[in-house]
Amino acid sequence: MPKSPSPVPSSPSAPLPSARDKLLFTPGPLTTSLTVKQAMLRDLGSRDEAFLSAVREVRERLLGAYGLSQARGWEAIPLQGSGTYAVEAAISSVVPRGGKLLALVNGAYGERVVRMAAVHGIACEVLRTGEDTPIDPSAVRAALTRDPALTHVSLVHVETSSGVLNPLAAIGEIVRAAGRTFFVDAMSSFGALSIEFEAAGVDFLAASANKCLEGIPGLAFVIARRSALEGIEGQARALVLDVFAQWRGLEKDGQFRFTPPTHALLALRQALIELELEGGVAARGARYRANHERLRGGMEALGFRSYVQREHASPIISTFLYPRHPRFDFPDFYRRLSARGFLIYPGKLTRADCFRVGNIGQLFPRDMDALLAAVPLVLREMGLELTE
Amino acid sequence: MPKSPSPVPSSPSAPLPSARDKLLFTPGPLTTSLTVKQAMLRDLGSRDEAFLSAVREVRERLLGAYGLSQARGWEAIPLQGSGTYAVEAAISSVVPRGGKLLALVNGAYGERVVRMAAVHGIACEVLRTGEDTPIDPSAVRAALTRDPALTHVSLVHVETSSGVLNPLAAIGEIVRAAGRTFFVDAMSSFGALSIEFEAAGVDFLAASANKCLEGIPGLAFVIARRSALEGIEGQARALVLDVFAQWRGLEKDGQFRFTPPTHALLALRQALIELELEGGVAARGARYRANHERLRGGMEALGFRSYVQREHASPIISTFLYPRHPRFDFPDFYRRLSARGFLIYPGKLTRADCFRVGNIGQLFPRDMDALLAAVPLVLREMGLELTE
Repeated sequence: MPKSPSPVPSSPSAPLPSARDKLLFTPGPLTTSLTVKQAMLRDLGSRDEAFLSAVREVRERLLGAYGLSQARGWEAIPLQGSGTYAVEAAISSVVPRGGKLLALVNGAYGERVVRMAAVHGIACEVLRTGEDTPIDPSAVRAALTRDPALTHVSLVHVETSSGVLNPLAAIGEIVRAAGRTFFVDAMSSFGALSIEFEAAGVDFLAASANKCLEGIPGLAFVIARRSALEGIEGQARALVLDVFAQWRGLEKDGQFRFTPPTHALLALRQALIELELEGGVAARGARYRANHERLRGGMEALGFRSYVQREHASPIISTFLYPRHPRFDFPDFYRRLSARGFLIYPGKLTRADCFRVGNIGQLFPRDMDALLAAVPLVLREMGLELTE
Repeated sequence: MPKSPSPVPSSPSAPLPSARDKLLFTPGPLTTSLTVKQAMLRDLGSRDEAFLSAVREVRERLLGAYGLSQARGWEAIPLQGSGTYAVEAAISSVVPRGGKLLALVNGAYGERVVRMAAVHGIACEVLRTGEDTPIDPSAVRAALTRDPALTHVSLVHVETSSGVLNPLAAIGEIVRAAGRTFFVDAMSSFGALSIEFEAAGVDFLAASANKCLEGIPGLAFVIARRSALEGIEGQARALVLDVFAQWRGLEKDGQFRFTPPTHALLALRQALIELELEGGVAARGARYRANHERLRGGMEALGFRSYVQREHASPIISTFLYPRHPRFDFPDFYRRLSARGFLIYPGKLTRADCFRVGNIGQLFPRDMDALLAAVPLVLREMGLELTE
């Protein structure tokens, strides 16, 4: 049998305690609460009432976090897989044959939607802006006016590749006024930022259990306006990625169509309870904002430059340019911080060398302070003095 | 906020201990070991070495369980989602445009492959036999001889809808001799039954973490012969279901292409270690066989009739016909067993009323005895005496 090359003991009786894991300054998987993880110490049958009631509760709480409900015409549809699975399920289920998508793009996650459209043979026009620049609503209006064949518009609310916050409400009003269907990738905003579902005319939205909701990865979901959802039957382009069929299955007998990630769902239920206990979306957003401000200010005081201007930056993830210093080596910087218990994240931009630091999960301003205390020590080890 | 309709307390600090959960006599999710679940009490960064080494170890152990290795030309490719996700990823990635699939079908999971082919516009001929009857290898040979356009053959090794064990080796030898590509859905056999990868000419195989491997749901995988895998680049019909791209990503930097279910992967690593500690595939299969024999004999002694003849039955799941008694009501039978802590499974056959009892997971002959002791008590409560 193969031997483990891991430094982590893999003997069956010695899982490391969660408290010993490094802090994850990443956009997910995140540092989650111990109670969220402990919710997974159970085995429920996927057709048993104990699990089905957890599914119902998760669906209700996903809507309730934003003041939505089934009674008011909204549906929450959990789906297996990562957030990208839910985005592809939505894109490939929602745009009909003969439809045409306007993809609003200012980063890697917008580009991913364009790739999905290509794979599924969906006609797609792309409106691109710079990776540090929010999408301009007036450009969206112009594009929709120019091409009456456009039936759908997709927007990434917070571009995780840079942290740029796009103006969802302003764009959504234009899409709604133009009578197009509006899809939002809210991966890095759902649970922490305000989303004006009604005012912005959101029709479909995809997000994940393990971003701002602070659940564990492996479970994602689509939020849909029921009147829009009812129109997409039979449009799906893959069996497992069929949003309509998943919804119908849940409504029929409360079950997922295919084996659900029962443990991830129990973790998400617990995470949604903890979101409520924290004070809901506004309170969670305020904590992330405090993390973000502490980090941004601290890093800039250390000599780092932020990639995204303050007014365009979301509080979810912070992007910093590599220092212009010949001895700065990101892999070395990363490893040294990792050795001190802080995991940051590489960049994902095409035009700038940068790295990212996530502000979400069970992180608090004191954790930002700890990271900010470690950074200058690491720079000194590397022989760098940015502020000199 | 919505209130939980669940009888399970959902307060953040009170997860029920695993030991209190009902025993799952189901085909998955299963009753898993506490140590497998405890492996999830961690948060690892998806790009960090601690996680990447776990991914490597899982990939090696998946192959090693069957004496395969990368050095001998095999690849293990973990994928997000349930087992069906891996089956659809394989079917839609492996059969090229212009290819034609021969789907061997004797139950719901074979039919599912046919639906996948239809959704993706893959030409598909279906060879069906009865739900209690293994696929006849000579019929496969005849079909392949009759239609030279057939390029691929799909087989469900153990049909979970009935428990029928199909003759993988005999069919595989025919497929190989005929020069076709062979795909096996080994959802309910991988980890417990022998699979003659080389002799049967298996090219691609899909299975899940939470069947005979006794991990948790949310993670599946494809095992592929590298020489076959290298030929499928660019064939995938959905971005997230691209087996080739997932493999290339893993080979390039050790990472999943999209956020991995880190907790499910750690659980699978632990489950694979426990498989080795139990004595490997042969020992696990022997335990399941002991469970199956105890159950089948006991149920037949109580007056139940097995749906599948002994020589065609796998030890994974046992299917029993509804008793021909006017007072037998399956939902009532199910609820009464559930109330006593035993969760069985409904049937999934088109031609016979039956229910299923899983023999897999952390179940032992003593658990079968406990179930067998509960059944007559429940029948008596229902006013039935089958053996009278």
